[in-house]
Amino acid sequence: FLLFFTHLFIYFALGSRYVSKTATKTVSEFEYDAPSMKTAVPGPKSQELLRQLGEIQNVGAIHFFCNYEESRGNYLVDVDGNRMLDVYTQISSIPIGYNHPALIKVMTNPNNVSAFVNRPALGILPPENFPEKLFESLLSIAPSGMNRVQTMACGSCSNENAFKSMFIWYRNKERGYASPSEQEVGTCMINQSPGCPDLSILSFMGAFHGRTMGCLATTHSKAIHKLDIPSFDWPIAPFPKLQYPLEEFVRENAQEEARCLEEVEDLIVKWRQKGKPVAGIVIEPIQAEGGDNHASPDFFIKLRNIARKHGCAFHVDEVQTGGGTTGKFWAHEHWGLDDPADIVSFSKKLLTGGYYHRDELQPDKPYRIFNTWMGDPSKNLFLSEVLNVIRRENLLEEVTRSGKALLQGLYSLQTQYPHILSRARGQGTFCAIDACSDATRDSIMLKARNKGLFMGSCGEKTIRFRPALVFKEYHVHQLLNILNDILAEHK
Amino acid sequence: FLLFFTHLFIYFALGSRYVSKTATKTVSEFEYDAPSMKTAVPGPKSQELLRQLGEIQNVGAIHFFCNYEESRGNYLVDVDGNRMLDVYTQISSIPIGYNHPALIKVMTNPNNVSAFVNRPALGILPPENFPEKLFESLLSIAPSGMNRVQTMACGSCSNENAFKSMFIWYRNKERGYASPSEQEVGTCMINQSPGCPDLSILSFMGAFHGRTMGCLATTHSKAIHKLDIPSFDWPIAPFPKLQYPLEEFVRENAQEEARCLEEVEDLIVKWRQKGKPVAGIVIEPIQAEGGDNHASPDFFIKLRNIARKHGCAFHVDEVQTGGGTTGKFWAHEHWGLDDPADIVSFSKKLLTGGYYHRDELQPDKPYRIFNTWMGDPSKNLFLSEVLNVIRRENLLEEVTRSGKALLQGLYSLQTQYPHILSRARGQGTFCAIDACSDATRDSIMLKARNKGLFMGSCGEKTIRFRPALVFKEYHVHQLLNILNDILAEHK
Repeated sequence: FLLFFTHLFIYFALGSRYVSKTATKTVSEFEYDAPSMKTAVPGPKSQELLRQLGEIQNVGAIHFFCNYEESRGNYLVDVDGNRMLDVYTQISSIPIGYNHPALIKVMTNPNNVSAFVNRPALGILPPENFPEKLFESLLSIAPSGMNRVQTMACGSCSNENAFKSMFIWYRNKERGYASPSEQEVGTCMINQSPGCPDLSILSFMGAFHGRTMGCLATTHSKAIHKLDIPSFDWPIAPFPKLQYPLEEFVRENAQEEARCLEEVEDLIVKWRQKGKPVAGIVIEPIQAEGGDNHASPDFFIKLRNIARKHGCAFHVDEVQTGGGTTGKFWAHEHWGLDDPADIVSFSKKLLTGGYYHRDELQPDKPYRIFNTWMGDPSKNLFLSEVLNVIRRENLLEEVTRSGKALLQGLYSLQTQYPHILSRARGQGTFCAIDACSDATRDSIMLKARNKGLFMGSCGEKTIRFRPALVFKEYHVHQLLNILNDILAEHK
Repeated sequence: FLLFFTHLFIYFALGSRYVSKTATKTVSEFEYDAPSMKTAVPGPKSQELLRQLGEIQNVGAIHFFCNYEESRGNYLVDVDGNRMLDVYTQISSIPIGYNHPALIKVMTNPNNVSAFVNRPALGILPPENFPEKLFESLLSIAPSGMNRVQTMACGSCSNENAFKSMFIWYRNKERGYASPSEQEVGTCMINQSPGCPDLSILSFMGAFHGRTMGCLATTHSKAIHKLDIPSFDWPIAPFPKLQYPLEEFVRENAQEEARCLEEVEDLIVKWRQKGKPVAGIVIEPIQAEGGDNHASPDFFIKLRNIARKHGCAFHVDEVQTGGGTTGKFWAHEHWGLDDPADIVSFSKKLLTGGYYHRDELQPDKPYRIFNTWMGDPSKNLFLSEVLNVIRRENLLEEVTRSGKALLQGLYSLQTQYPHILSRARGQGTFCAIDACSDATRDSIMLKARNKGLFMGSCGEKTIRFRPALVFKEYHVHQLLNILNDILAEHK
């Protein structure tokens, strides 16, 4: 009977607010009211743990150590008892806040235990409920025009395998769907053409698609990601650099987008002439790591047409933008296309990696897209529940509402502090604002952290906001008040 | 109070044998006694599910659908109620059998809930217990000479990042640990040398190191893995092709190994002259996917020395061989070296991916080896418990004992059926035997499956045995009896 008590303990451990509300409907009913700071961050406990972990890993990127047990909703608690409003959410990967009751329920459902303790090799021995769970989770939110999905363990693996699908599709077209020649089969074993053909993926300056070697060849956001790693000679197009406020630079921005599109076509032609044809184009709907760079729907619609015109697959990487944070489940839905892409990859807030694709992009043979785990069904269980919560709590509407308040607030701040802030931009709560320099940006972020607001950075001098989908107007005002206090004090 | 009943339900669902033994000490006390077959495999339910899943994925590699809830220990139960002795264990990734009581306990420990529902970005915001859990799990089994470990989500990501560590280490040596030049920082952003240098990794024919694009450039086991995917011009050395029985071919095998080592040195020199120096050598202690190809400790010792002589890092890929299945925790321990490698990567039975490395291989700066999740602490929790079970139940000794019985049995079978079987080989339970042709191999495997024995294949005509660590002599005899029945009937 010990087991029953241990379970009781979980609910007490999470605090009395939750125990008294087993039927809690919204996250705000069980989360904290406000930040609460006890030490500077990182505090003494975090510093001691940094020392310990420093003996076995490079800890230079660690902000502080967390007490996830005590974290709730939008509030992240650290090991020194500091409670922060978290608008970075584990690099944008926590969909509905910390310790959401609905996710804890998944853990206590006896039907789910087996999915956690017996991780299958999904490609050869899937569990009985695998098709059903795919239909009720990933396929229920499939992008327009796509009925097929392949799960993977993380974002990089998703993009790597998406690239492979595009290469396979492209070569199958080239050889007229005939069997590969003996020469192809032979040369591929030793990394040589024609079996390993000189195909390329076109990407954009400022892009981030991951850090494994295929992905990394399409990533161009920061030198530290790429230095010293061998790469492929693949074409890189400019991504539009829009001027803000958008309504004042309509003509200039349209010209800038046209320039970039022209360059895309030039590169496709040039690389074909070089003998390294572009099999696919990969792009983020909003360049995130690269500095929250936006482009208009018109740009993406024209780019999709260029891809089609030149016979390149079109891969939309929604690893960071997907999952509802822009106010639609997929950021590319804002373009209004019926067939927005050939491949859409995801990870982070979806909790499992993977990619959707059009029928033609399915590999013609088994074992071409394959690895041991090919995802993790226990993550699909969490995702199903996340989707239930999103629907039940109308979280996409909430995101749209909170996003509007956030962006309005950022506009006000940049009007009030024009020497410090500029280029406020965003879609849903996927918002950003630039500081006047990287040093100022970093200083604002550190001050905010010590006042209980944890934010992320991107690009050269950008602050990015990546709250969870349970981020309400109430939290927006908390965020804006803290930022305003810091800016008012800023010299 | 509903929660308490749901938990009760788990224990009933797992069968009365388990309910009556909350203090079960060994897996054999709760598992089944023998295979039990009700239909041909795949049965009608599996076939219906294949049809459903076929609408969204290529299902050509799927054997059947599983009822993981009813699977226990060494026995995998499918959706048609067939119960098979499983000696493939999800491509060698289930360490201590299905539904081990110790792993179920991890799920019901209230201290663990948070690790499952709040997946952190480990590289920036690790949980409080992260250093402690690393010490008690991965570092407690660290290979000789290595005190540092980096977790990753899967085997491919582990090898990709291990390669990157070797490139970074090699370039830092080359530039005398000075800061990178402006030219390097600039060129790396556009995939060009010197920022993205023309470095290479030396691998072996028959190797398998994963399927993302960096890994795939070192994988040379089957054309289907590589066809149509662009690759790197990296050197590929021959892996020794030993003749069996080993004691009859001592001289020939020594010559073969010497030939391969000579070729390794030639390739290192040749690629240096080509301007694509070898930064690292990657090798499996036993080539698994490539056909269970073994080499002597002497071969590996000399190879490690060649790596050192030429200033290349030495990366031992233990993704399949690690975790105890060879009778030692790491297969390379059989070589008897104090400093066997610079990097040892793992995944599969370790439940989390990752790699150990020597101090020098640690990247000099944060964010050089980095991604969003960098592993999954919930997997570390399971691993800790797996290690407890291995120690408590002396499973490495069991593996050695069962492995001896298995190999002896395979020797007997090949003596009895010399026209069908040859080259029985193995270390611990990591055993294999060749059939006279791929068709015969496939036919034996299908017949075995219908008699309740589920095996894996590798190479051209090899059957590979990859039982869990709870595979006892009792199971060995079951396996041998089924194989013997099939061979006796074989035309």
